[in-house]
This record gives sequence, C-alpha cells and structure tokens, in this order.
Amino acid sequence: MLLEEIHSPSDIKKLSLQELTALAAEMREEIIKTVARHGGHLASNLGAVELTLALHYVFDCPEDKLVFDVGHQCYAHKMLTGRFAALRDTLREEGGVSGFPRVSESECDAFTAGHASTAISAALGMARTRDVMGDDYHVVAVVGDGALTGGMCYEALNDAGQSGTRMIVILNENEMSISRNVGALSGYLTGLRQSRTYRAFKRGVRQGLERIPGVGAPMFRFVERFRDWLKTPFVDGKFFDALGFRYIGPVDGHDLRRLIRFFQRAREEKDPQILHVVTTKGKGYVPAESHPDAYHGVAPFLVETGEQRGDQHTACGRVAAAELAALAENDIRICAVTAAMPTGTGMEVFGKAHPRRFYDVGIAEEHAVTMAAGMAASGMKPYVAVYSTFLQRAFDQIATDVCINALPVTFLVDRAGLVGADGVTHQGVFDLGYFSMLPNMVVAAPRDVRDLKRLIRLSAEYDGPMAIRYPKDGEDLGARLETQKPLRVGEWELLSGGEDVLFFAVGRMVQPAMNACIALMHRGVRAGVVDARFVKPMDEDMLRASLKTPLWVTVEENVLSGGLGERVLAWLAKNAPDHAAMTLAVPDRFIEHAPVSSQLRQCGLDAEGLTASVLGRLGR
Amino acid sequence: MLLEEIHSPSDIKKLSLQELTALAAEMREEIIKTVARHGGHLASNLGAVELTLALHYVFDCPEDKLVFDVGHQCYAHKMLTGRFAALRDTLREEGGVSGFPRVSESECDAFTAGHASTAISAALGMARTRDVMGDDYHVVAVVGDGALTGGMCYEALNDAGQSGTRMIVILNENEMSISRNVGALSGYLTGLRQSRTYRAFKRGVRQGLERIPGVGAPMFRFVERFRDWLKTPFVDGKFFDALGFRYIGPVDGHDLRRLIRFFQRAREEKDPQILHVVTTKGKGYVPAESHPDAYHGVAPFLVETGEQRGDQHTACGRVAAAELAALAENDIRICAVTAAMPTGTGMEVFGKAHPRRFYDVGIAEEHAVTMAAGMAASGMKPYVAVYSTFLQRAFDQIATDVCINALPVTFLVDRAGLVGADGVTHQGVFDLGYFSMLPNMVVAAPRDVRDLKRLIRLSAEYDGPMAIRYPKDGEDLGARLETQKPLRVGEWELLSGGEDVLFFAVGRMVQPAMNACIALMHRGVRAGVVDARFVKPMDEDMLRASLKTPLWVTVEENVLSGGLGERVLAWLAKNAPDHAAMTLAVPDRFIEHAPVSSQLRQCGLDAEGLTASVLGRLGR
Repeated sequence: MLLEEIHSPSDIKKLSLQELTALAAEMREEIIKTVARHGGHLASNLGAVELTLALHYVFDCPEDKLVFDVGHQCYAHKMLTGRFAALRDTLREEGGVSGFPRVSESECDAFTAGHASTAISAALGMARTRDVMGDDYHVVAVVGDGALTGGMCYEALNDAGQSGTRMIVILNENEMSISRNVGALSGYLTGLRQSRTYRAFKRGVRQGLERIPGVGAPMFRFVERFRDWLKTPFVDGKFFDALGFRYIGPVDGHDLRRLIRFFQRAREEKDPQILHVVTTKGKGYVPAESHPDAYHGVAPFLVETGEQRGDQHTACGRVAAAELAALAENDIRICAVTAAMPTGTGMEVFGKAHPRRFYDVGIAEEHAVTMAAGMAASGMKPYVAVYSTFLQRAFDQIATDVCINALPVTFLVDRAGLVGADGVTHQGVFDLGYFSMLPNMVVAAPRDVRDLKRLIRLSAEYDGPMAIRYPKDGEDLGARLETQKPLRVGEWELLSGGEDVLFFAVGRMVQPAMNACIALMHRGVRAGVVDARFVKPMDEDMLRASLKTPLWVTVEENVLSGGLGERVLAWLAKNAPDHAAMTLAVPDRFIEHAPVSSQLRQCGLDAEGLTASVLGRLGR
Repeated sequence: MLLEEIHSPSDIKKLSLQELTALAAEMREEIIKTVARHGGHLASNLGAVELTLALHYVFDCPEDKLVFDVGHQCYAHKMLTGRFAALRDTLREEGGVSGFPRVSESECDAFTAGHASTAISAALGMARTRDVMGDDYHVVAVVGDGALTGGMCYEALNDAGQSGTRMIVILNENEMSISRNVGALSGYLTGLRQSRTYRAFKRGVRQGLERIPGVGAPMFRFVERFRDWLKTPFVDGKFFDALGFRYIGPVDGHDLRRLIRFFQRAREEKDPQILHVVTTKGKGYVPAESHPDAYHGVAPFLVETGEQRGDQHTACGRVAAAELAALAENDIRICAVTAAMPTGTGMEVFGKAHPRRFYDVGIAEEHAVTMAAGMAASGMKPYVAVYSTFLQRAFDQIATDVCINALPVTFLVDRAGLVGADGVTHQGVFDLGYFSMLPNMVVAAPRDVRDLKRLIRLSAEYDGPMAIRYPKDGEDLGARLETQKPLRVGEWELLSGGEDVLFFAVGRMVQPAMNACIALMHRGVRAGVVDARFVKPMDEDMLRASLKTPLWVTVEENVLSGGLGERVLAWLAKNAPDHAAMTLAVPDRFIEHAPVSSQLRQCGLDAEGLTASVLGRLGR
C-alpha cells in the first residue's frame, strides 16, 4: 500500500504520475472506509482527493501554508501529512484525530477551521506576515463554492485584491452540489464552467483526440497547455477581476496531470490569483456521487450499500419545522429562513409545506438575520433556523437590527449545548449568554420535543424577539413529566419539590437533574427540580417561592458567563442575599470532540456529576 | 422658505424643477447650520441632498420603503418627512431627533440603522414581505460605496440577485471619499465612473453642447436620454451582473433632472437593479468638500470658517496608537488593523509611523479579525482597533479564529461604554460580556490614559488574546491615583481602603467611584475603591483580601449580563457565599442619545447614582 509509505508530504514528490494516480485511488478507498467506520464528512472529502494530492506535490508544507476553508475537505490532507493511521483508527473519536484542520494537531495545518468563509482572510494574514518578515513562502487558501456565499470571502478578496499581495485562492466548485446551489454567484460560476470553450474542450476535443491512438493524447495535452497559456480569455472572470484577482480556470479537479501543471504555473505568479477547480462531490463512491447532499456529513454506514446506521433520536429541528409548518397554514405571516442548512436544521420540512415562504440564503448568517428583521419590520413573522455556533456570526445583527426595535424574529437555535464529534469549533455553549445580554430578548430552552412544540406555539403568539435553543436530538420525556399548564413567557415549571436542594435546570439538563434527585434521595438528600425553561426573563414568582429550599443549584449546558446561573445569582444578590446557590455549567475552556455523553461527563453535567457536586457542597 | 412648507414627501411632488433646485439649496444651507449647531454627520449628508429629493419626488413614502444604509445621509430625508424643525432644533440632543433613521421616529423611516451594510438585506426582507402579501410597493436601499466593503452587502446581493425579487439598490458613490477608498472594488467603481463614455459625456458632450445657445441644452438632454436608454452598454457592470443585478449608471448625483428621470425609469422595471449615483461628499460647503474626511462626523463648528469646537479631552485611541507605534520600533511583529476607521480609532498615528504594518481593510470587521488571526498564527502580533459596537460583528471570529488557538491578537476596543449623541445603535455596553464568556481571553479596561499606556505595554509582552476597552475620551487621573507597581495580567489595584463598603470599579467607573467615596464619607460611610482593571481573569488574591469589607459594590459601564458584577457574584457563591454584594451596571434596556454625562446619570453610574445606591442598600 502506497499510503502507508507517505509519512510527510515530501514523500509524494518522488512519485510518478502513475503512482500518484494509484495513491489517489487508495486514498479514496480509505476515506470511504474511514467515514463508514467513524462517520464524518464524506462527499466533500472524496471530491478533494486529487486536488489535495496535486497541492502537496507542488507546494512544500509546512513551509508553504495551505489553509482549508471549513475543513470539510481536509481528510486527504491529513492522510498525506503523517496522520493516515490515526485518521483511519480515531477520526472524530475522543482523543483522536479531529474532523477539521487543527493547528494543535500538525504543523501542516496552518489554521484551525470549522466555520465557513474564513480561509481567504486567514491566508491573507499569513501572506502579509510573510511580506513583513521578508520570507518567501506560498500561501494557498482552498475554498468551496458554498463558502463563497459568505460575505467574509468577499471582504477578504476585496482587501487582498487591492493590496496585490501574492496569494493563491483555489475555488473548489463541487459540480454536483445541490443544496449549495444558492445565490446568483453560483449561476455565474456555472456559466464560467459551461462556457463554450470549456465544454468544447471537455466534451468535444477530449473525446475526439483521445480516439486517435498515439497522436491523440499528446495533442490533447498540447491543446490543454495552449488553453492554460491563454489564461482562458474566452471565459469571463470579470467578477474576480473587479476584486483585483486574476481569475484562471476552470480546470478539471480530478485530472492530476492538469492540476499539477496548473498549480506549478500559479506558483510562479506574483499577484493574487483565483484558480477555479471543478470537482465532483462524492467522486468515486456511487451513493455519494448520486446524492452528495445526503452524504455530506454522515453517520457510520455500510460501504456496500451506503446505508447509514439509524439514529434512534428525533431531530429537534424537524419537530420545530413541522410544528411551524402547521401553524403557517393559518398564518401567512409565518416564514422560515435558513443559512445553507435546510437539511441540518430540519427546515426543509417547512420548505416543502410552504415553498414560497422558505428562504435559504446560503452561508450568510448576517444577511439571514437582517433580512428577517426587514421582513419583521414590514409585517411578517420570520423564524431563523441556524446552529448555535454559526449564529455567533450574526450577534451584531441580532442586537442592532432585531432587538433595538423589538422585532418579532424568532431564532431556532439548533445544535445548542455540547455537540459531540464535530468538536471544539462547533460547541453551542455561548448562546445563552449572547442572547440574554440583549434587551428585549426572550431566551427559552425546551426540556424535550413536546416542550419544544409548545414553545413554537407560544412564539407564534409572541410579538417580539425570541430565541429557542435546543440540541440536535430530542427525547420525549412527556410521559414522565407532562403537565397540562399552557406555556407563558417567563414561566418556569416545578417538576418535583425538594426540601434540601432545588435544581434549576435548563433544556437538556432537566433529565440529568431528575436522575440526580433519585441518586441524592438514596444518600438522604431531598432534592427537587424546576424546569427553568426561560433563561430570560426568569420566573421571579417561582424564584421567590423557592427560597424555602436552602440550597439552589443551577444547571445549564452553556458557559457560566452570561448564563442562567449568573442571572440567578444576580437575582439573589438583590432579593435574598443570604440564600445559598451553586452554579453548574460548561467550564471556561474549549471542549474537544468526543461523544456528547462523554463531553457532558467531562463538564460534570451528567446525573453523576450533578450528584457529586451537590454531595461535595453538602460535605457528604 | 420652501422648506417650511414641506410637511410630508407629498408636498414636494407639486414643485417645479426650479423650485426643487431652490429647495435643495435651502436644505443644504440648513444642514450646514444644523450640524454647525449640534454636531453630526456633515459631508455625507451634504452629498445626498439631490439624491434624497429625487427619491421622494419619484417614490411615495411611507408606502414605498426607503432604507438608508448606516444613516449618515438621512438628514435630508428627515427634513422632507415632517422633521425639519425638530432636526434643526434638537438633532442628537437628549429627547430630540436621532442622527440615524429610526422606525420609532417616523413611519417614513423604514428601518433603524447605525451599523453599515445592512440596507440591502433589510430591503430584500421588505420586498419579500410585499411579494408574500401580494402588495405592490417599491423598496429602495441607499448604500454608500464605503458600506459596500462590508460582506453583508454581497450576501444580500447574491441572495436577491438569484431570487430576482424586484428591488432597487442605489449605490451612492462619494466621488471624493478618501479614507473609504479601500478595497479593490473601489478601484472598479472608479473605473466604471471614469469609463470613456461617462467622461466623454460629462466633459466633452456637455461642454460642447451647452455652448450652443438654444439648441445645446435640448440636444444635451437628448444625448443623455439616449445614453440612459442604452443602459450603458459601454461601461462594464459585469461584477453586478454576476450577482444577478442589472447595473445602470453612473449618473451625476447632483443633477436633479437626470436623477428624477433615472429613478422614474427604474421604478418601471421588474427585476433587481443597481443604480450607480456619483455624488460629492461635502457638496456645497467648501471646507467639507475639500476635506470630506475631516467633515464626515463633526463636533459643532463655526460656519464661516469650518473651525470645529475644540475637544478638551485626549482621545484614548490616539494614546494607544502612539504607545503602540513606539513599541513597534523595536518589535517588527507588532502591526495594526482597522476597519475603515483610521481616524476614529486614532490608528492613523500608528499608520504614519509604520505604514507597511498598518492595514485598513474597509468596513469589514469579520475579515479584520480573521486576517489578524492569520497574521498571529504566522508569527505577527496584531492589534485590531475597532469600536466596541462594531466589533460585535466579529464575535464569532473572535471566538473561533482567535480564542480556540489562544492566538496573540489584541483588541483595542474603542468607544466602549456609553457613547453619547450617536445613541442607541452605537452603545458599547456588551463587550465585557461577549469577550469574557470566551475561554483564553483576557479582558482589561484602563481607568485613565496613563493606565491605558501601561496596558498597551503589558499586551505587547502577553502571548494570547487580550481585549482592552476604553471610551473615546480619556482623562489623566494619574496625579491623584498613580502607583508605581508594574501591571500584571489579572492584577487589580486597591486605590483606597474602606471599612464599610468597597467599590470594584471598571475603567471609566473608577473616577465616579472615588467621588462617591467622598460623598459617602460625609454620610458616615467608610468606602474604598479597587480598580478592577481586569474583568477576566479576576484578581482572586485581592477578592479574598477584600472579604473583610462587609459590602462589595461592583460598578461597570456595561450591561450586568456577563460583566464583572456577575463574575464577582459567581466567585462569591463559590468562595464566600455569605458575603454581601451589589452590582451596578447599565440597565437591561437600550439607551437613547444624550450627552454621556446624562446617560451615565440615567444609568445611575455617576458619583451621585453610586452614592444613592449604596445609601439605599444601607438603609440610610
């Protein structure tokens, strides 16, 4: 196996084109097997095999800097930079290789990624460092066409283009991407790709020439080289020209020989360049090639059939979307906005029911929020469904465009709390704080899917900004915990009383708090649970009524700073300064990838952790 | 005076072109006098007089929606929508007319603005509402070329362009803008403007034709109309084409007749359009036309000379920049980044000393931060100088790109706390929270300019992310408060002991806390002050040593949520649950424009407020 002999990128430079091609095939097979075993990003990684191989063949890592945007295409890179066995054995496992580029993992990972559209900015920073320091290395940003819908890319191109800093941006366009086919620019790229020249080249010339044995292949290469030499005057890259970049391409991203020549030429240039590379998402694995979206991020699956291991859980996002779709039947004002995540957020369910009131704006969280604010300002009732960690992108728009005028925009904050295998860049552990600090904002978290539906119904009646945060997977605790009271903004629910200790638990923390009560009972501690469903506003009547329990314990899947615990302490400082309280929350450090259950345990937020903390505090 | 007869936009529709021209002259004069009296945005507002007049002549507010980006050009709009006298008498005064568009102020203000690059998103939201509701009104976004460096604009254009939603974007290019001349796209716009056709038209044809009496003027108008009709095939608007917009222009933004025809034609179109209008910043007021930058945002000034009333205060930003420039003499790693605010942040001082290590990236806070992270990841020591309120734009980049890898990026957070006349959209009262919630982050606030210099020196030695937040104006309290101890990260300073009460004051709050001590002394309360210079990490030794004072009072110019007060309460809950503390902070509502001193008083954060709060707590 060639792959086992690649310990660093320098090892591939000795290989012949034939060997490189064989290596690509091995890599592809290993990516399929690895993702089948551990889950992860499949289609995008399969598409980037030759591209990555050619990059490492031409450039010299770690001296040259390769910056992968988002990182959904970094597995091939990890394989070629000394992490093949580790990737195969430990991808996304606790203590194992991350699914994203990590500076801490390899000196060949120039920048830690996870959120889209950052690579050009980071690469420009590195190029500027190089110029200040008088160094000479190359900086290459690899960016997907999906990430190009993010405004940051444009800010970076605009800055880099004017400064004329030497850098290379590789635009990796996934030919078959469907859900990313959002935004006018996507049509423009398709236009570039399908320009007569390229089509003629790809379909006509190639087929024609390759039929002539002996002569065809060299002739084909000559035509190819000639076309490159002309720097594609036939296709119009003026969009990128306007941004000060030299546009070159498109080139077939699975043709190693062409890619290598393409990169070798780009390596010699002195100005900022965009190289347009066309790849096929899922390349080489039929199920993924046919359904690149379904195989973008996957759970472990059977290689033979592509069948993914069933998920036992209900996706909260789909529950919210279905409830919202039902409400929208009778309320034309209700509409939904998502930022390139119709499937991930479950909002496609709403989109199918109400296609004219469903807006996928691309990876553009800032725009998503302000666009929704514009809708709300003119009479609609928009719901913005975005992952907690990505919604950080729109903090200012939430504050300025939504909250100042108290506009009725509801945020459906998916993947809130600890997220498992995606790890450090994807944890949704700041949203309780970044929402709660804003005036006019209501911040809620359902304890289960039944509660989520009730919150959705409540939000439809509420005329102001509201955030509803929930994890990916929801349980239905209803059978055990159901109460018949209708929800009201700011109203908590006493699930079970406790004479010694009272937990104030938020969202997913209600269940471990209930379990901790049982464990504590066995130790002679009478503990109860309040579902502190609203982090803001808090239920002051409930707080006052709860003062009879001597020790309060707040429990939240969020950092302490700005969350429920501090809010409760502030309330106590004002209203009952002598009352005792302890605050349990995600600690003040970044939490690495691991199963959610393990992350909760690390944070002391499982039932055992809660029990131990309370016993410790009581000195037992 | 014509202006006094304009009570609503419908009143201008009866006016002749001659009367409109006279009205424009009156408006310009009134803008100059109004800003001379109250301060505000001058050059940009002078540039937009004819543009605004033509818009209101052609479109019907409030049915049609005019969305002004940022709002630095909304005074003419306010004059024409029933607020002339109020603007003249109360602009930016407490209880008076805001300097920005405010939904709460007039039904003609379609969207509240203050931060750049939001108008296209908001307008698209309104256009979509219109389409869902089956209405027929027009939506017009007015965007400056400066705002176009913000990525949100591009996200919005990309979305709007693909959906084909009927809307009009007016690109108001300030011909003479200097500090905004950032980014490659700016060069592209200049190219459009200076294209042969336009130049020929403007310089040649006009001069030529106008010399011919009788025939010249009609002929000139004919040529003009013909050119418009052709939709400028001679200039290349392909950048906007790629985004799905029809580009039309450029047109002279001070030629009322042309503007009106231009807008009337655009009104009839059914697809998304960009109308390129070229205006002159400061038009009609010589000092502003000659120095549009110096007259962008101004203090009250003398109309005759343009001389602005002297500011007694030292600008903190300039102090920081000068200190940094001195350090950079001996440390090539030190560099500075600003987002279109070289003057406002004072960083131009650094730029003059080290032009090759100074980067103005345009209104692009997200890119600024990640670009700095890229620099830090490759060996530089970047300082990012941005206003507190605008840095909200980059919260995710601070969290993900800077903090996860603990990169040595220092944030110089200007305009922190209450900001005075700019009001509700510009308050810097969330940064202590949004920084403190992030792991690896150090959050500091100097009490005066001397302290600021020491923090800058400290940050240069510190190898990790740090935020230093300060208000616009700094005092030098040194004479009273100077101590010789060198600064260390996380170390507070006991300025005066107190047996009854101890203030923990942050930044600008140190001085009122000192004054409150004196007032309290007269009431028999022995109070002291700790300069809690670091909100994170806190000085735990100092906290422990301070437990001997029975009542602690935290004082910060930030909302309570996520700030010092809650952090201190959390520390107490863990370490000294019986200790009494009260937290004074900006209340949980948006604070309107007024002098800073008045805003502080409203928030109970002046010496009198602090004194009264403490006395209230002590029951005196």
